[in-house]
Amino acid sequence: VTGGLPRPIGIFDSGVGGLTVLKALRNNLPCRDFLYVADTARVPYGRKPRQMVAEFAREISQFLVDQDSDAIVIACNTASAAALPSLARAMPVPVWGVVDPGVNAARRLTRNGRVGVIGTRGTIDSEAYQSRLQAHGLDVWAKACPLFVHLVEEGLAQSAEAELLARHYLGKMPNIDTLVLGCSHYPQLAQTIRRVVGNSVALVSSAEEVAREVRHALGNAPSLAEGRSGRIVHFVTGDIAAYRYSVAQVGGLDGVFRKIEGFDGVSLEALDGMGVPTV
Amino acid sequence: VTGGLPRPIGIFDSGVGGLTVLKALRNNLPCRDFLYVADTARVPYGRKPRQMVAEFAREISQFLVDQDSDAIVIACNTASAAALPSLARAMPVPVWGVVDPGVNAARRLTRNGRVGVIGTRGTIDSEAYQSRLQAHGLDVWAKACPLFVHLVEEGLAQSAEAELLARHYLGKMPNIDTLVLGCSHYPQLAQTIRRVVGNSVALVSSAEEVAREVRHALGNAPSLAEGRSGRIVHFVTGDIAAYRYSVAQVGGLDGVFRKIEGFDGVSLEALDGMGVPTV
Repeated sequence: VTGGLPRPIGIFDSGVGGLTVLKALRNNLPCRDFLYVADTARVPYGRKPRQMVAEFAREISQFLVDQDSDAIVIACNTASAAALPSLARAMPVPVWGVVDPGVNAARRLTRNGRVGVIGTRGTIDSEAYQSRLQAHGLDVWAKACPLFVHLVEEGLAQSAEAELLARHYLGKMPNIDTLVLGCSHYPQLAQTIRRVVGNSVALVSSAEEVAREVRHALGNAPSLAEGRSGRIVHFVTGDIAAYRYSVAQVGGLDGVFRKIEGFDGVSLEALDGMGVPTV
Repeated sequence: VTGGLPRPIGIFDSGVGGLTVLKALRNNLPCRDFLYVADTARVPYGRKPRQMVAEFAREISQFLVDQDSDAIVIACNTASAAALPSLARAMPVPVWGVVDPGVNAARRLTRNGRVGVIGTRGTIDSEAYQSRLQAHGLDVWAKACPLFVHLVEEGLAQSAEAELLARHYLGKMPNIDTLVLGCSHYPQLAQTIRRVVGNSVALVSSAEEVAREVRHALGNAPSLAEGRSGRIVHFVTGDIAAYRYSVAQVGGLDGVFRKIEGFDGVSLEALDGMGVPTV
């Protein structure tokens, strides 16, 4: 139907980490509707077998397509590394991960051709960032920082522990000039990381980068959407009350909350009564 | 019914941390059946409001009573601190937490009357350990170690990060002679903690202590149970596959796995076809 409201953009993450990506997307595309799947029943993805994570990503993407999403953003680095590019080939709508936008930004920003990347063990072990950066002729230093995500989740981003661990992980970093924060939680550690690595290193936030790429690709909202404020539907596989509490802590992402009981043949009527356009 | 098999013992935790308690109980009572609830859909409890955690504990305990448990063990320090003693008064069967057994062991072991306790922020902020130890006239030093549980969950119990954080949290410990490991994950950090605090400090594992108290209270299994090997039913609120993977990593706790869809009026026929005695 021409001239109707744009279809919603689907996003997913293992839990609340991807809310930074949702926030960046919302800031970039304020008129658009977003469907966010938080797979909190199966969080964390970072230590699970790659094939298991890829299967989770496929199930959730299919669900988002069934809900009439016109684009999918994988807000989780671990899932992006495990599922792309094969998932993009399998889906009838464009699929963005957070890895390629981070890689593109690093290519643009580096002057000496030496780039670092930090992430969960799953992301770093997958070599998703390393192989892409090396394919562009860059020297790559990579480091798994498995405790960084927990610093953020524990509200310790500005703590003595954060400083201690940042020095441990990054204190002996080689002469790179660009560092990719390859985990959606890490932007919250930027100040601490900045103190350790100094002002000469550019920090790349994948959340911001993917939001810019998606805005560029999808363009501005069609005329009917202008001036309206986009809505958010949160689909949660785990406990709703606990998730709502986390969303409230993050702030600015309120919307409708729907429990998903599972991905195995459960009928979902998630958009009923929401007014989210399904043309 | 006299002479029948003993009824199962119910245990619960927010996730896989309490498996150390289940293991200790199984070692102490090898003939008994165990029902373990892993509330992985709502993990972690450590940062949630106390009243919310107490309500989770009540729901799960009622479920375990409905499954004919003849005793309940709260394998989670955060939930023990939030829900006891009021939960024990509300339930028709004995309820053990991990706090009192840890306190009792510390009283028995200390020579200088100075006891330390470490745990999650929820456990330490509740002052459950501190108030009980002080009521017995002991001097108490308490420290929240919010990253310790993540070291264990990330498989980093023996790492450089563990050493670094143990020195951070425990390096300036006062002159105590007994340290209560007030979190079911912490026994796995005992070696690292031992290196930091030295050999003169006794380490108390709540998992071992609660298992001893339960064995003492419930006694040996009745005659019909002798020589049989107890069975385990795992009830999981989150994803079954992910949980089974974690149980396999721990080892020695295999059994039947059942998904629980929630605690709100969902009919559960969890013991069907299991042969777990319900007389």
